[in-house]
Amino acid sequence: MVNPRYQKRLERCGHLMKETGLDVILLSKPANLFYLTGDGRLCAYAMVTQGGKVALGVPQTDVEDVKQVAHFDHLVGFEDEVGMIHSIAHYFMHFNISKGVLGLEYTFLTQVMMGMFTHPHAKPKGVTVKDCTHIMSELRIVKDAEEIENIQRAAKVADVGMDAAVKAVKPGLSESQIAAESEYAMRQNGAEGFWRTYVSSGPRTNIAHGLPTLRKLQNGDLVMIDVHPIVNGYSADMCRTVCVGKPTVEQQTA
Amino acid sequence: MVNPRYQKRLERCGHLMKETGLDVILLSKPANLFYLTGDGRLCAYAMVTQGGKVALGVPQTDVEDVKQVAHFDHLVGFEDEVGMIHSIAHYFMHFNISKGVLGLEYTFLTQVMMGMFTHPHAKPKGVTVKDCTHIMSELRIVKDAEEIENIQRAAKVADVGMDAAVKAVKPGLSESQIAAESEYAMRQNGAEGFWRTYVSSGPRTNIAHGLPTLRKLQNGDLVMIDVHPIVNGYSADMCRTVCVGKPTVEQQTA
Repeated sequence: MVNPRYQKRLERCGHLMKETGLDVILLSKPANLFYLTGDGRLCAYAMVTQGGKVALGVPQTDVEDVKQVAHFDHLVGFEDEVGMIHSIAHYFMHFNISKGVLGLEYTFLTQVMMGMFTHPHAKPKGVTVKDCTHIMSELRIVKDAEEIENIQRAAKVADVGMDAAVKAVKPGLSESQIAAESEYAMRQNGAEGFWRTYVSSGPRTNIAHGLPTLRKLQNGDLVMIDVHPIVNGYSADMCRTVCVGKPTVEQQTA
Repeated sequence: MVNPRYQKRLERCGHLMKETGLDVILLSKPANLFYLTGDGRLCAYAMVTQGGKVALGVPQTDVEDVKQVAHFDHLVGFEDEVGMIHSIAHYFMHFNISKGVLGLEYTFLTQVMMGMFTHPHAKPKGVTVKDCTHIMSELRIVKDAEEIENIQRAAKVADVGMDAAVKAVKPGLSESQIAAESEYAMRQNGAEGFWRTYVSSGPRTNIAHGLPTLRKLQNGDLVMIDVHPIVNGYSADMCRTVCVGKPTVEQQTA
């Protein structure tokens, strides 16, 4: 499937790779796969050459689905980790890469994934590895019109989710039940999922990652609500703090 | 806070560390932190010695919250990554560890996290690193009575979530809307969150990770639903495939 959007992104990616001395990159972070190929799923990889060729490896079960949605030059299904490693070796050969520098996502890859991508049965000996996180960040920092539209849609869904959460706040409900109202409203209004929902109340409002618990809201509590709906792969982030019941003068002036 | 449950787990952990030649472990996977300290949160770490001493590092904002819920011997709050690295160095000194083997979670740590935990300003030169994933797995594979109760509670919540999803299945609703009904019911019935909800329909039913999309269900579709509520840190997994409308003879015999 040839799609000018991905051709253009791959071209920009190739320029950045050239500038920073990367001959090929091997991506597996879903958001990055989505950006360069139009499909981002778990347990998949994309090998992208400086010249903009894309080879995708996905679970065997997913081959037909990927064919429908992704931009790629080569596609292979694998049954397990060994199959994945061998398919990577195959693409190194196919692209005629036996030396040079391979970019990997150091902010995403676990030690174990790193071990598979750089396994002697996957990566040619002459190929060294380097972090490519900065390239993906630089590539994705400027959004095109369609991306901006997706973010705007996500922001609207966040509005709806925040509204539902704030309306639900009352004594006796748990943090998780507030999250329930918000997530329900967001899915009904076009979210395909969430990048977490935070609801933290009372003594928990100031913690760094306020994942909802079964703590019940009490009159006078402050409640921090943070929603992140995902719409077509793009997310918005909206955070509000509200009071259960009438706020005190101190709470109001704070 | 001295709690015999964690004392016992730490003792067993110490035995396994001794058997496999680990002097100290540095954990950050929330489920493992939760198992050994009673609190599992993001951006936190636990340094655990062979002798069962626990030093916790958490975001500064979370110190009071952690004090209420966690089992630990030492607790420090940090403002940022540099603070985290220095606090790790401090605990190596405090526990008088300047050489030996450090266990790290290779199936959880990204390259970047690995870089912080093994930074020359964090880890003494004489300390080498090794994967400790197998120890945590062996430790956690046999569940105690309270853990079994938590899993049973999660299984009951999964029942409720599956029931809500199956009842919601009808033409014209999106996969995400089916997930909405299921997640709402689970949060109302005691889930504090989910480890994903999969809903995949029609041509998507056989893919490996069927995260819900905005695809609308059609009459005759098969729909795969997979729910994983989390109750008190423990999860259940229930998967069912149902048909939109009356199944064909072929679907029924399959």
